[in-house]
Amino acid sequence: MNNSDYIDRDAEGEVGIVDYSDFSCSEPLDFALGGRLESFNIRYETYGTLNADKSNAILVCHALSGDHHCAGVYSISDRKQGWWNNIIGPNKPLDTNKYFVIGSNCIGGCLGSTGPGSINPATGKPYNMTFPIVTIKDMVAAQKRLIDYLGISRLKLVIGGSMGGMQALEWAVDYPDSAEKIIALATTAYQNAQAIAFNEVGRSAIMRDPLWNGGSYTHSSFPADGLSTARMMAHITYLSKVGLDAKFGRHKRNLQSGDPNSIFMPSFEIENYLHHQGESFVNRFDANTYLYFTKALDIFDLRGKNGTLEETFASVKAPVLTVGFTSDWLFPPSQNREIVNALIRIKKRAAYAEVESQLGHDSFLTESPRLYELIRNFLDANA
Amino acid sequence: MNNSDYIDRDAEGEVGIVDYSDFSCSEPLDFALGGRLESFNIRYETYGTLNADKSNAILVCHALSGDHHCAGVYSISDRKQGWWNNIIGPNKPLDTNKYFVIGSNCIGGCLGSTGPGSINPATGKPYNMTFPIVTIKDMVAAQKRLIDYLGISRLKLVIGGSMGGMQALEWAVDYPDSAEKIIALATTAYQNAQAIAFNEVGRSAIMRDPLWNGGSYTHSSFPADGLSTARMMAHITYLSKVGLDAKFGRHKRNLQSGDPNSIFMPSFEIENYLHHQGESFVNRFDANTYLYFTKALDIFDLRGKNGTLEETFASVKAPVLTVGFTSDWLFPPSQNREIVNALIRIKKRAAYAEVESQLGHDSFLTESPRLYELIRNFLDANA
Repeated sequence: MNNSDYIDRDAEGEVGIVDYSDFSCSEPLDFALGGRLESFNIRYETYGTLNADKSNAILVCHALSGDHHCAGVYSISDRKQGWWNNIIGPNKPLDTNKYFVIGSNCIGGCLGSTGPGSINPATGKPYNMTFPIVTIKDMVAAQKRLIDYLGISRLKLVIGGSMGGMQALEWAVDYPDSAEKIIALATTAYQNAQAIAFNEVGRSAIMRDPLWNGGSYTHSSFPADGLSTARMMAHITYLSKVGLDAKFGRHKRNLQSGDPNSIFMPSFEIENYLHHQGESFVNRFDANTYLYFTKALDIFDLRGKNGTLEETFASVKAPVLTVGFTSDWLFPPSQNREIVNALIRIKKRAAYAEVESQLGHDSFLTESPRLYELIRNFLDANA
Repeated sequence: MNNSDYIDRDAEGEVGIVDYSDFSCSEPLDFALGGRLESFNIRYETYGTLNADKSNAILVCHALSGDHHCAGVYSISDRKQGWWNNIIGPNKPLDTNKYFVIGSNCIGGCLGSTGPGSINPATGKPYNMTFPIVTIKDMVAAQKRLIDYLGISRLKLVIGGSMGGMQALEWAVDYPDSAEKIIALATTAYQNAQAIAFNEVGRSAIMRDPLWNGGSYTHSSFPADGLSTARMMAHITYLSKVGLDAKFGRHKRNLQSGDPNSIFMPSFEIENYLHHQGESFVNRFDANTYLYFTKALDIFDLRGKNGTLEETFASVKAPVLTVGFTSDWLFPPSQNREIVNALIRIKKRAAYAEVESQLGHDSFLTESPRLYELIRNFLDANA
């Protein structure tokens, strides 16, 4: 169900009330590292109106813990906005007065698209760990099916941050004629060792949780502890040291407990914050999808057989903008700059911009007039 | 048992074969945040010879996962050297031809000194979580008892890195007449929010392990998974991003398994390395001590009631050298510099030095001619 009628009723410069749609693809999808789905579902949302020649579509790719719900709210009573509501909407950088913006849940996900927790029609049971290994290439291949289904032959823009930025780059490489422009934020062309290391600790925490049970668990008994630990740790990597000092410092909570060991309960505000992050995450995210998506990140390496990005980027046609954020230590500016340097060396149109921010990796999700301006200018420029 | 006779027989510039000693203190120890031990043990080692007027003693303070075994080996067949064997020995920076070097296991530890795993004489059972909360101040108070017992009224130097650096600073503040000089490496005067955050994730991993069981476990059934996860994560923070890229990059292990999900086994070298670190740690370290020591780190804050270091440092008499390592992001150079800046503002003798290194926080443990020179020069200078 498309809700553009609802959207049009919103007069406050917001996307307003939205709903998701499901695209059921009955053509098999073969995965890059082996395995196949005979059919699959992609959940998506759209904002704005597709024009007559279907030339104004923008695809937004989500990060590890994101989803298709990029903007607006689901109802008057549900005030939780989509994760990029600050970027998408009337007169916003991805202006829904001009563009038809599409958000979709990645294949392998747990929020509507087919993933490890979905029922395998062949067995009547969840795929769990029999789900094919998912790569960024597979995510993009599934998105391409959705775009084809929507009748769009060429996207105006593919944009995303972090894992979403990897997808945007993969679009440029795999479907050079299907995307006019690419914006990749806070990302990398190949996962670095430290990021792999953090992901492996998260996966270990999940797989060591007895309730993980080899990936076979239920809605009432699942590895919440392992997933929470993984999320708490990962969340630290999304924020900067200086940002944490500024926001939390050494502020303590006022514990009333007379228990002398209450000191081992979260007593600093930062501890409490992390526990809150962990708890809210396990209520909305699936542990097996976390394993598959972090592995997709770790596998990601756009360098070709000769070890260079230039080899892979030979196919790129779209101008590419990458944006690094100064305090992002997960995918630091240098890794975003490296992408553009490789493109420029082979005479492709590419630009790198750096945004000053204390908010770490999550900077791409937050209020940033400078980022807004970069997106607007890149979209408005002649391709 | 003191092994200086063995040490003297070594002709290769090494401390050689050593053994530990135990100091059983029967005077009660009151802890800074409450609680008391009626008696306790401190395990320690010494290298070199105490001179006649007992003026050549150096106390080495260990970090979170360290112990009293700082130098030498326990036997011809046990080739595992003490953790600072590169620093301590004949003609080394802490020169055992000149100095009597003491390493001791911190109170609360699990490697010989009384800690949560020790038997409480009052109950005949392990203390477990009834052990008093341990602070850096308590560690130093217990060390002071050992130094008194050894008949040493004034140490030539107190030196340590990371948690050991905190202890060295605490010596300067709490016992200004008992230490002639202080060297604190890769440390901080107060734990920052990011470091607290990582420690809390580690503690959560342990306390969520069903085998932790409220801190009550056995040698055959203990929270190895939780402790391993905590160590794997912490180990990432001890190394630098650039160091990990240089050492491991994206190198993969050759997995022979035909299991399609072997991809979720450690497949990158960095993953394998972390698992190895986790496994070896659980074989030598106690989960409850990990909880207590990380909490001691997090509680540590030398700032006085008015929020300044100057207030606390008013008592300091010893010259203080702090050393930061350029790629240390756990206790970065700025935090080491801040200590010296505060001391200088109140006219204390203090110096800050920065050592270029790609090895992150662990730099203080590794081969470094520049660090060696800094230690030698500071020791040789007139106090």
